[in-house]
Amino acid sequence: MNLILLCDDDFSAPDRVTLSGRRFRHVVDVHRAGVGDTLRVGRLGGSLGSGRITRLGDASLDMEVVLDRPPPAPLPLTLVLALPRPKVLRRVLQTVAAAGVKQVVLLRTWRVEKSYWESPLLEPAAMRAELLLGLEQGCDTMLPQVAMEPLFKPFVEDRLFGLAANTLRLAAHPPAPAECPRDVRTATTLAVGPEGGFIAYEIEALEKIGFTPVRLGERILRVEQAIPALLGRLF
Amino acid sequence: MNLILLCDDDFSAPDRVTLSGRRFRHVVDVHRAGVGDTLRVGRLGGSLGSGRITRLGDASLDMEVVLDRPPPAPLPLTLVLALPRPKVLRRVLQTVAAAGVKQVVLLRTWRVEKSYWESPLLEPAAMRAELLLGLEQGCDTMLPQVAMEPLFKPFVEDRLFGLAANTLRLAAHPPAPAECPRDVRTATTLAVGPEGGFIAYEIEALEKIGFTPVRLGERILRVEQAIPALLGRLF
Repeated sequence: MNLILLCDDDFSAPDRVTLSGRRFRHVVDVHRAGVGDTLRVGRLGGSLGSGRITRLGDASLDMEVVLDRPPPAPLPLTLVLALPRPKVLRRVLQTVAAAGVKQVVLLRTWRVEKSYWESPLLEPAAMRAELLLGLEQGCDTMLPQVAMEPLFKPFVEDRLFGLAANTLRLAAHPPAPAECPRDVRTATTLAVGPEGGFIAYEIEALEKIGFTPVRLGERILRVEQAIPALLGRLF
Repeated sequence: MNLILLCDDDFSAPDRVTLSGRRFRHVVDVHRAGVGDTLRVGRLGGSLGSGRITRLGDASLDMEVVLDRPPPAPLPLTLVLALPRPKVLRRVLQTVAAAGVKQVVLLRTWRVEKSYWESPLLEPAAMRAELLLGLEQGCDTMLPQVAMEPLFKPFVEDRLFGLAANTLRLAAHPPAPAECPRDVRTATTLAVGPEGGFIAYEIEALEKIGFTPVRLGERILRVEQAIPALLGRLF
């Protein structure tokens, strides 16, 4: 938790908050902070700043906050990601939120197991909890939007074309001959397949709407490793 | 397991292997392969190629193998990494092996908890098991070398200077003003701190022997996310 994220409910006045629960425990146990100490804070959906502890109780604390800086600029990226298995999805949601991705589409592909769509992690509150952990790690306040597309064909053929219009369109695909470009400085839509990759039909469907298959060197990386590697190269 | 790694003990002749245990189960349960099927194989420390199943028993299988391609080129990188907590170390060992890093130094820094050095994961056999999983993922045959340096000062002051001579020397440090360079195409030594980062003394000690502190954008990433992001950008 590099940033303490404040929600509207925490505010008792425009510059005063009360924290309890997980964030309170973190301030006490990890920061070992006391009255007068200043911590990095941010308002969910709003600005970054600092909070000075004015009261420290047994189960809650008060802070006086100054919110005077904008959050970091979002990555100009829409990530279209084959739904990973739940354990990986948890880490991936934190990863994308920490990295500054603001648009995520979780997609059904041939190699996505049907049972993954029944994971309780896909419930909005569960997903939001993981995204908040990512924002706290990356020091950002703007929650990513996550859409779910459990049907590949209608999504790719009918909607992705419009969604990706006027963006650089890339599909991560280890067998591709082209290397992933670097430092693109442009709005990008990046499709990332499941473990085992996209099948030929899926890559062709993406190519038809202007996606270029690209690879990251000769090696095959797990999705939770491939995503930061691709982001580190693209932006 | 994108690659089935063969050890010397598996060979009954230069082109014949017998597999049992984990790799046998993987071929049966995940590849669902049968006699006559061909799978991607590699000899640990040697070449890549293919293996054709010639016998499939209840607990073992035989393959006829052709090993005719070199493994992918290693990354020209020495990674000096503050020892992460065991759960993270496990993933990081797999990550670096999959990515093609061949030299890793696990370092004690101020913010590394002493108990981490007692993890059973640091035993050579345990470490090797994680590295092998990474090679199987990344389709490589060359095991990374992992050294342990439980004393920061003598390592950095006496040995790191020599180890990093004639390489680009970078220290990942989120508060640094300089951005991490891209596509460096040169031998590199990269120091990565623990959760919470290097302390000022440590960064100064690294700077004294020619390391430049660099950051990856404005965000702070977890070590398991920062490593692939840095590698994706550097190479």
